[in-house]
Amino acid sequence: MNREEMIESVKAEMPERRWLHVQGVMATSVELANRFGADPVRAELAAILHDVTKYWPTARMEQIIREEQLPQELLDYDKELWHAHVGAFIAERDYGVTDPEILDAIRYHTSGRVGMTLLEKIVCLADYMEPSRDFPGVNKIRSEAEHSVEKALLTGFDGTITFLIEKGKRIFPLTVLARNDMVRQVNGG
Amino acid sequence: MNREEMIESVKAEMPERRWLHVQGVMATSVELANRFGADPVRAELAAILHDVTKYWPTARMEQIIREEQLPQELLDYDKELWHAHVGAFIAERDYGVTDPEILDAIRYHTSGRVGMTLLEKIVCLADYMEPSRDFPGVNKIRSEAEHSVEKALLTGFDGTITFLIEKGKRIFPLTVLARNDMVRQVNGG
Repeated sequence: MNREEMIESVKAEMPERRWLHVQGVMATSVELANRFGADPVRAELAAILHDVTKYWPTARMEQIIREEQLPQELLDYDKELWHAHVGAFIAERDYGVTDPEILDAIRYHTSGRVGMTLLEKIVCLADYMEPSRDFPGVNKIRSEAEHSVEKALLTGFDGTITFLIEKGKRIFPLTVLARNDMVRQVNGG
Repeated sequence: MNREEMIESVKAEMPERRWLHVQGVMATSVELANRFGADPVRAELAAILHDVTKYWPTARMEQIIREEQLPQELLDYDKELWHAHVGAFIAERDYGVTDPEILDAIRYHTSGRVGMTLLEKIVCLADYMEPSRDFPGVNKIRSEAEHSVEKALLTGFDGTITFLIEKGKRIFPLTVLARNDMVRQVNGG
């Protein structure tokens, strides 16, 4: 499947407004990859596929998590996190992506994790700050991303954790570990 | 060692202002135990000993963590958490406490954990809200503690996590798991 065919196929999986978001993540991932020395082609490929299962029915994702030996603890957490792991699985099975770094960038784009690669950081950060994103603090993230992918991502994670606290929702422990790892990388704290 | 001897010994381990805090935790633990149906005698005993090593030199606590097979990951986290685990160890070794529920109430009074017993919740909550505590939000905790130990403790944990985010410090994953567990208990979320 070439780039254009992949784009057409992914586009068909989601509503138009979400496709605008994906285009934003693609452009921002390429920009960040060029700025921080990652491969822009791989960054764009991960971005194209990162939300491929975002609008799938919950039951369809749950079936894949159960039947394909994805981490079962996912089922205990917010469904918001499911599409990232299921997306990585589908990227490999249906789109033929075999590069483990691209698959991990899809898999951890929502939660983050300890020891994120530069590519993972870039796609995760692009997902926070692409041009159509509009939430309190997004401009702080964009401005920090001019200089430091880690600092910008830390601000993004902190915002997510604070948001989940305000909403009384459970916090995914991986995000806290990823955030602590970013604190360490930013200021050795 | 009887109660009075224990009190004298613990008092000698800390400055006067900290002893005032311990007295507050003792009184509040007894009050909460009576309110929510736990054993006030065991609650008070855990409260007396909860900060027994709080003012020990870091090196002395580190030596115990390393030599006595306490969880080694403690060493990666804020020193603020060390005294709770070292305190439980000292309560058993030097004060002869053998009741595992009392030892756990000392051990988890700072971080919390998943599946806290009522006694653990009470000592942890008393530590947040005893009369000499004065921080933004403490009165909300006190008012919630009139009716629900879980709701009040959730507010306490949320405040701790938010404080660590604001300070750019690492968040102890156990506290997040404890907080998520409290979300589940409070609203099934």
